[in-house]
Amino acid sequence: MSEADVSRRTLPESPDALALLPMLYVAWADGVLTPAEISLLRDRIESIHDLPSVVREEVCPYLDPSNPPSPEAYDRWVQVLREHVEALPQDRRMTLAEVGLSIASAGGDGAAVSSSVRAALTDLEGAVGVDGPGMVRELREQRPEPATGDRVTRPARFDIEKLTRHLDGDRHDHIDHMRTLLSDPAFAYPPKLTTPEYREQVMEWLTILADQGLGALSYPEEYGGGGDMGDFIATFEALAMHDQSLVVKYGVQFGLFGGSVYRLGTQKHHERYLDGIGSLEIPGCFAMSELGHGSNVRDIQTTATYDPETETFIISTPSEAARKEWIGNAAVHGELAVVFAQLKTQGMHHGVHAFIVPIRTPSGEVMPDVRIEDCGEKMGLNGVDNGRLWFDDVRVPRENLLDRFGTVAADGTYDSPIPSSGKRFFTMLGTLVGGRISVARAGLMAAKSGLTIAVRYGNRRRQFGPKDQPEVPLLTYRTHQRRLLPRLAKTYAIDAALQNLTETYISRSIDEGLEDVEASANALKAYATRHTTDTLQEAREACGGQGYLHENRISTLMADTDVFTTFEGDNTVLLLQVAKGLLSDFQREFRDLNILGMVRFVAKDVLERLSETNPLTSSQTDPEHLRSRDFQMNALDYRADRLLQTAAQRLRARLNDDIDPFDAFIDVQDHLKTLAEAHAERVTLEAFIQENDTVEDESVRAVLDRLRSLFALHAIETDRGWFLEAGVLGSAKSKAIRTEVNRLCEEVRPDAEALVDAFAIPDASLAAPIGTGDRH
Amino acid sequence: MSEADVSRRTLPESPDALALLPMLYVAWADGVLTPAEISLLRDRIESIHDLPSVVREEVCPYLDPSNPPSPEAYDRWVQVLREHVEALPQDRRMTLAEVGLSIASAGGDGAAVSSSVRAALTDLEGAVGVDGPGMVRELREQRPEPATGDRVTRPARFDIEKLTRHLDGDRHDHIDHMRTLLSDPAFAYPPKLTTPEYREQVMEWLTILADQGLGALSYPEEYGGGGDMGDFIATFEALAMHDQSLVVKYGVQFGLFGGSVYRLGTQKHHERYLDGIGSLEIPGCFAMSELGHGSNVRDIQTTATYDPETETFIISTPSEAARKEWIGNAAVHGELAVVFAQLKTQGMHHGVHAFIVPIRTPSGEVMPDVRIEDCGEKMGLNGVDNGRLWFDDVRVPRENLLDRFGTVAADGTYDSPIPSSGKRFFTMLGTLVGGRISVARAGLMAAKSGLTIAVRYGNRRRQFGPKDQPEVPLLTYRTHQRRLLPRLAKTYAIDAALQNLTETYISRSIDEGLEDVEASANALKAYATRHTTDTLQEAREACGGQGYLHENRISTLMADTDVFTTFEGDNTVLLLQVAKGLLSDFQREFRDLNILGMVRFVAKDVLERLSETNPLTSSQTDPEHLRSRDFQMNALDYRADRLLQTAAQRLRARLNDDIDPFDAFIDVQDHLKTLAEAHAERVTLEAFIQENDTVEDESVRAVLDRLRSLFALHAIETDRGWFLEAGVLGSAKSKAIRTEVNRLCEEVRPDAEALVDAFAIPDASLAAPIGTGDRH
Repeated sequence: MSEADVSRRTLPESPDALALLPMLYVAWADGVLTPAEISLLRDRIESIHDLPSVVREEVCPYLDPSNPPSPEAYDRWVQVLREHVEALPQDRRMTLAEVGLSIASAGGDGAAVSSSVRAALTDLEGAVGVDGPGMVRELREQRPEPATGDRVTRPARFDIEKLTRHLDGDRHDHIDHMRTLLSDPAFAYPPKLTTPEYREQVMEWLTILADQGLGALSYPEEYGGGGDMGDFIATFEALAMHDQSLVVKYGVQFGLFGGSVYRLGTQKHHERYLDGIGSLEIPGCFAMSELGHGSNVRDIQTTATYDPETETFIISTPSEAARKEWIGNAAVHGELAVVFAQLKTQGMHHGVHAFIVPIRTPSGEVMPDVRIEDCGEKMGLNGVDNGRLWFDDVRVPRENLLDRFGTVAADGTYDSPIPSSGKRFFTMLGTLVGGRISVARAGLMAAKSGLTIAVRYGNRRRQFGPKDQPEVPLLTYRTHQRRLLPRLAKTYAIDAALQNLTETYISRSIDEGLEDVEASANALKAYATRHTTDTLQEAREACGGQGYLHENRISTLMADTDVFTTFEGDNTVLLLQVAKGLLSDFQREFRDLNILGMVRFVAKDVLERLSETNPLTSSQTDPEHLRSRDFQMNALDYRADRLLQTAAQRLRARLNDDIDPFDAFIDVQDHLKTLAEAHAERVTLEAFIQENDTVEDESVRAVLDRLRSLFALHAIETDRGWFLEAGVLGSAKSKAIRTEVNRLCEEVRPDAEALVDAFAIPDASLAAPIGTGDRH
Repeated sequence: MSEADVSRRTLPESPDALALLPMLYVAWADGVLTPAEISLLRDRIESIHDLPSVVREEVCPYLDPSNPPSPEAYDRWVQVLREHVEALPQDRRMTLAEVGLSIASAGGDGAAVSSSVRAALTDLEGAVGVDGPGMVRELREQRPEPATGDRVTRPARFDIEKLTRHLDGDRHDHIDHMRTLLSDPAFAYPPKLTTPEYREQVMEWLTILADQGLGALSYPEEYGGGGDMGDFIATFEALAMHDQSLVVKYGVQFGLFGGSVYRLGTQKHHERYLDGIGSLEIPGCFAMSELGHGSNVRDIQTTATYDPETETFIISTPSEAARKEWIGNAAVHGELAVVFAQLKTQGMHHGVHAFIVPIRTPSGEVMPDVRIEDCGEKMGLNGVDNGRLWFDDVRVPRENLLDRFGTVAADGTYDSPIPSSGKRFFTMLGTLVGGRISVARAGLMAAKSGLTIAVRYGNRRRQFGPKDQPEVPLLTYRTHQRRLLPRLAKTYAIDAALQNLTETYISRSIDEGLEDVEASANALKAYATRHTTDTLQEAREACGGQGYLHENRISTLMADTDVFTTFEGDNTVLLLQVAKGLLSDFQREFRDLNILGMVRFVAKDVLERLSETNPLTSSQTDPEHLRSRDFQMNALDYRADRLLQTAAQRLRARLNDDIDPFDAFIDVQDHLKTLAEAHAERVTLEAFIQENDTVEDESVRAVLDRLRSLFALHAIETDRGWFLEAGVLGSAKSKAIRTEVNRLCEEVRPDAEALVDAFAIPDASLAAPIGTGDRH
């Protein structure tokens, strides 16, 4: 028989050749044997002692790598093998050798097979080194059509509504009102708009909010306000379920602009402006940042020079770097601006103060000697009209100084309750801490939107699956769980921390001092907005190409919130401030000891104190231990404490060596950033534990506790380099933590969709076709 | 004297009181003492033995936290202290006590100060626990205006032009031609366009490229082509200096569409289509992905059923999930599409094949029974007209089957040189590997653009600085260096790896098999595009608000390249494929041992082999060792080897326990992903070392070697959790590596701008006002 003939033959006929059919299948099945291995298999068969010539004729020609069988022949083999194995008992593992013997003879015992082939079969199977029973199972299984509706929609294991109420806290009714309002057709997302149209749309929405009394929520009641900072922050956050440009414009008008008039001004300003600001009759700007000074605002260069003859301040932009930059509401809508400038009077400098400066007439004409430029297109937030401002010796009356923290008498005499200009400025900045908390919360809401979309999609979208089985939802995959579920847990944790911080902030009277709140706000703002950017990126990728479509909204959330890590305090700058604050508290702690005449600080003592409470040296790796809040809290406490102590030591060593403080600071900057992040994480876990303790419903508390463990253990796992390097975590424990994170992902997975449902973001605001809910 | 009087007094008068002036300054300076500490300081002063009453009258009233000094008084103290310390010798550290004594008497020796105060001064300074000499230095220093032009622009320490030539490789002339072409006014970025306008603009640019003969570069010369795949890839990459929509549209038309006609078709297709495709007379699509099958393309559902009576294939979309999705060129411009469908003939299924299907007439009308929908707005790449396609039993002639890997005779008989449909499909997919390499390179070019902008901005933008010194460039800060410089080094490393891979790919004849190239392309595509997304995010943030402005282009680069992690193979899917490939190579290695009758594989042997070559157990921490390529290469080799071996062990353990293979796979999925990433990093370092060895110029090689160390050590530092957990890196060495990364950042920093200049991205294409070059 010629080779050409053989290649057209579809099936060996003799029992000996049929017994080897499984080996032929193995030889040509996808990705099993290499060409060299096929040749080796043939050699091996040919060297069988007493090999029947029929095998040499019917089988070996098919084992020539340069002359593969026709698709027809191969398909026929597969068909014959499949039909045969389907008829065999399903509950038995069968080797390829057994299948070969079975197929070679009607009785299935291979009686017709020659003893030489029979003896060689098992050897051959071992020699090719494949998983024979696995290949038999593959042949047996057919891929059924995917069953419909088997996505994980089992009833939630907890009361979603109760969890929503817990998240909303005592503002639940107000937030629910916002959900209804935002679902009103007036807030429906319009089709793609040009930038000018989008800005007008946002202004229209803002007007609706003002008309509903939602603008003046934080101002005193005597000026038309609600007198409730908590409702203001809740509104800001709720708006972040919807359009982020609206959030920012709301914040600029009522928070930064109105808030600075309220908090930096005095009664005369409140009486004159607050009512109009809250009703949006007076749209305004908060003009602090300059092109050359975005983070280092204490060194802005705009000047306000007092002229006693006319009793006016002269506002001037002395250089291009001093132009006011990124000013929201400036490009189109603003009429007034609160302008921050260096106050000069009687030849003396008194540092940064705020002044009310008209920039447009109510009919929209730009005021004389004011120049305004549009910042133009941005990555996102194009519904906000950011602009640049220049002041060419603009004169404003003396009373336009917002004079709560510094006054200028008619003759130019300056006075202030705070002697140093630096401390005065930071006191003024401190009044802005509410904005920082609000931005962190709004960003977190965007992360919640992204997770809602991605988790729902991950539960519905199927891809791949077990061989010849229906495809499975993406969220079944460990890689997919690890993308989304630890971030879901962290979102809940940060929510608790921000909730906790907000409560402290709003219960604090305006004169009590806000240093501690500010420090926490700085840390959590940086921590939360970093989380938002990372989470939305992951959510986008987890939704694949669908995530890249504009209609599914994740890309808009990303573009709009990307600047949250930059504005209201650049995250890196904030973290370094936090670290400096921790260091100075630390130093102060021991300075107090000095001044009180007590024992001197010895570094060794602190190390000992730390190691007493160090829970990590334990070699316990059982789940009970790893999931205990004590272990988790101690771990994060220990890391933050130790990073603080080593940072202080490193700085002191450099200062003792007479290294310039600035150089010393740069030299440990990465350490300080790590410290601040560790601090933020510690504060977050602490708050999460506290908040979870307030939950009465057991099933809700159980799910939150599981999230707490997932958050904390994932945080430790992520930074296991630090824990291992510090010698306080061993390899076995580190591995056990990884295993536990995987287990927790599995455990949280059935609740995942219910957990995003509990964010209760209305479909009208979420508006992503791939991610809208089916429970509300 | 009443307290009110005192508060208006500006300066103590008596020597004893003046000697305490520095303490008053300390009490009220920014952020030094708490109110409680101010009170304690007063108590301490009041308890001085024999305290002169003048101190009690002139000093103590100023130490009442509830009654701070006026700003006037405080400013006067600062002025007096500053003037005084400026007149003192500059080279001496002085304590606050010494300054007090000096200021209290003309002679500077404090002779007029009473012995009781004199004795208490040093004690008080110690008790408040401040850095006295530091505060004195601060008083002394004035903040000068920033010197201009002192940004780091010293002449580069290497020949930038030579480095550019090294990066361009043997395509330098072609790439330089592209630089000139892209700088032509015809390619100038237009002002903001609507999506339809943008699509036409990109089509216009594409026409210019085709007219220049740049479309057919990879096709054989007999069909009007250049016959050079290398030039095609270089063009694709060079276009990525410019607009990414143009890159993608170029890739769709000439790479995916034209490339599939060329590589999956036979002579009759080449003759009929290639000329028109290369000249853009025939715009076309590559229609593989379906809504339901983006990654798992082997299971797409579109069918092509052969009808022997009419000798046509009937192309059908059987369900909504089977619609073709994300098809570039489909929404507006495409006339033909290469459609992938399941081939059926004579009642048999033969798996996925490609067919040429007309979707529009040359005048732009949609063909009968074809339905097209626009995908609409996307996050980016809106210059590409992505669309959806449905086929309602569209008939195409038999010759429209691209029949290189499978033919259908007129009577419907199927034949193929590759027997199994799975292997056949993966062979077809393998021909697309060029696209995957190209996408990785284009993405890396976008990262280069982002780094060029961010590094230049970081060198020019100043913020903060040493107290009373000029502000310093951002890139002086360690935190900023750490954001950008390790990523710059990694960009150079990946560039080398992709260069290396491209050379292998283009030197390979089309029939030699591409499995190994495909595996590397998958690994590097995932590794490179992940790096692009991360780098652009960091670059955006490193440029602060400026980075958020559309005009500075980073946001566009981000939005356009974000999908690079998803298309041409989702990164997670690719990485898992890579890991599976490594596992099967690993398994095969030991199967070969079996079939050759050699010793059986014992896991222990491999472990021993690994530990012999393990360089990490050494406790060497000196820079020479850490910077040696041996240490670095061995570290990355060891990690990849060990992850492979443990993955194999874990999988085997599960399979031995009869766990379903799919479940076992899910169970170790995170391990497999880590393995694939480690493999990609190992391949990258290997290639970087190889490529650097080809550099003849010593100064260029020196800077590349420094980048190699920065890349490798930063990679180890980033994954130190793994190295520490594996017990092959100790704490001391881990810390030493961190220190070395910091040092390398410092060393690379002076070259940073020259290193981005060497990318030689034309200003016209970079087009970011904050980041254009001043050297070319």
